[in-house]
Amino acid sequence: MSTLKNDIFLQALAGKTLRRPPVWMMRQAGRYLPDFMKLKEKYDFFTRCQTPELASEITVMPIDQIGTDAAILFSDILVVPQAMGVDVQMKPDLGPWLPNPIRTQTDVDKVETPNVNDRLHYVMEAIVQTLERLDSRVPLIGFAGAPWTIFCYMIQGQGSKTFDKAKAFCFTEPESAHQLLQKITDTTIAYLRAKHKAGVHAVQLFDSWGGVLSPDDYTAFSWNYSKQIIDVLGDEMPVILFAKGCWYALHDMAQSKVKALGIDWTCTARNARYLTGGQMTLQGNFDPARLLSPIPEIEKQTREMIEQFGTTNYIANLGHGILPNIPVDHAKAFVDAVKSYEPRRY
Amino acid sequence: MSTLKNDIFLQALAGKTLRRPPVWMMRQAGRYLPDFMKLKEKYDFFTRCQTPELASEITVMPIDQIGTDAAILFSDILVVPQAMGVDVQMKPDLGPWLPNPIRTQTDVDKVETPNVNDRLHYVMEAIVQTLERLDSRVPLIGFAGAPWTIFCYMIQGQGSKTFDKAKAFCFTEPESAHQLLQKITDTTIAYLRAKHKAGVHAVQLFDSWGGVLSPDDYTAFSWNYSKQIIDVLGDEMPVILFAKGCWYALHDMAQSKVKALGIDWTCTARNARYLTGGQMTLQGNFDPARLLSPIPEIEKQTREMIEQFGTTNYIANLGHGILPNIPVDHAKAFVDAVKSYEPRRY
Repeated sequence: MSTLKNDIFLQALAGKTLRRPPVWMMRQAGRYLPDFMKLKEKYDFFTRCQTPELASEITVMPIDQIGTDAAILFSDILVVPQAMGVDVQMKPDLGPWLPNPIRTQTDVDKVETPNVNDRLHYVMEAIVQTLERLDSRVPLIGFAGAPWTIFCYMIQGQGSKTFDKAKAFCFTEPESAHQLLQKITDTTIAYLRAKHKAGVHAVQLFDSWGGVLSPDDYTAFSWNYSKQIIDVLGDEMPVILFAKGCWYALHDMAQSKVKALGIDWTCTARNARYLTGGQMTLQGNFDPARLLSPIPEIEKQTREMIEQFGTTNYIANLGHGILPNIPVDHAKAFVDAVKSYEPRRY
Repeated sequence: MSTLKNDIFLQALAGKTLRRPPVWMMRQAGRYLPDFMKLKEKYDFFTRCQTPELASEITVMPIDQIGTDAAILFSDILVVPQAMGVDVQMKPDLGPWLPNPIRTQTDVDKVETPNVNDRLHYVMEAIVQTLERLDSRVPLIGFAGAPWTIFCYMIQGQGSKTFDKAKAFCFTEPESAHQLLQKITDTTIAYLRAKHKAGVHAVQLFDSWGGVLSPDDYTAFSWNYSKQIIDVLGDEMPVILFAKGCWYALHDMAQSKVKALGIDWTCTARNARYLTGGQMTLQGNFDPARLLSPIPEIEKQTREMIEQFGTTNYIANLGHGILPNIPVDHAKAFVDAVKSYEPRRY
């Protein structure tokens, strides 16, 4: 663990005793950064993802400008279904748009389990170029969508509050649903392994839509697949799972080989520690909208968050991605408040 | 409590020991009913709400056709901001649309606290006509949005996954936010009191968007106002609160004068009983999308839900509104499974 100049993030994943927690922000290489917006005006979404020079340039922006303790590769969870032969577009106002969503067994049969080194070569190249740009300053995180969340988009064809079509497919065609989930799982395992081989120091699974399921259905259609990934990869690399809204599954998830669990802002530190057994590394959970507060309030609430989670077994982060309308100095105030944290002395 | 022919719903609210729980469904008078769709084609949304003959006809449809144990007045939570002088429209594909959302203290100052008997007279008339049509078959429930949820629409101006503008207003202009929340609260107390005087047997508060807040912010911006309503009205009539996604606040809510708490499908019966102290009436929590399952599966899962919640201190319901694409016979299978429930004998 390390020729890295700053490896506090990896130390937190390993459960080391720390003076202050590491900090990064989900979507930290995103639209709140003016330099990101300049590239966004010039290049469309998938060009930015698929051009290693651009992806690596974007990835290091928050390291240079905000000073987070880890970088996360600029990419998108939907490059995986794209590599599986499903047409994925990004519409300016709508977000993800899949013109031919999966709706039948015949559709499922056509979905490929690709050679990821071939189809997603541009991701591996972006990792190599990012590591060069980072020059061992901080670790690099790779990520993928959890199989359930990828499945949601493949069936629904776009974002949704309820993902009712994805759920309907599970409840009316469970065998086809499980087949598709397995294909996504197999592809994701190969994809994350390739990313690790290319040099990422840790990986994170994003289960953005697990929270639309009941606990029993979450186990059947989401956790059973995320767990396969964690079982296979957990001994090879640190795996973090962030399952938004899935407080009810924290207990089960904590029993796996996962190295850290992401927590959203609806789950207090106390509840999260209780539900996960008190001993594992947790990551979160500042409400992204709370970064709109005045800076002194951000600083105060950030310190309170650290006091509640503690400095060991904890990675400071937001409870979901940073919002595009957050002023840069507010984002920086959050990061600085973590970095300058001093434990209270009694 | 009762010249009513079937008052099992009120008995459950009063904590009586029952052989089987009562059952109704949120949005039971809605788009899954073909007769509702016929009226929807002829009359626009607010015409249906504001014409007592139509509202009462729609309200009794599920009693005649599905056989639920309670009726809930056909209306909308947004009649309250409309009565407060805020323009509210309903757009076919988008849902609620408020062309002039509240964004400043000046906007807040202009919001009225109206005479509800005057502005919302049509609701009271719809209650009177519904009670005539019901002819004492089952009780009638009145409802309102929780102040936070009404506030969300007033600020955001439309539906949203995150209600980021509503949250931003709270975090940047907290005094203005609290003033507006108080106006909504005062209006809602008067409104529900008028509904009860017109004849509803119980009322339900819907906090559809409480779950976007952190526990501390939920207390400050939502629960503090719902609690005022419950404190004032709790001795006058049975009040039910359904705060979707607010599992973390169930413990606090259970300490109030609320007669029942609605539970969504992400919170198991066991968690809900634990968090509320085990003694109060709970209502829920079948996943609405699970009504897409084959009928035998619906029957099996409905029986399991009752076994988990018990037959006393329990009202069977969905965990959110019924979806428009649910076949009528599936909805009826759910209701029939509750009504034919027989406790297991050992």
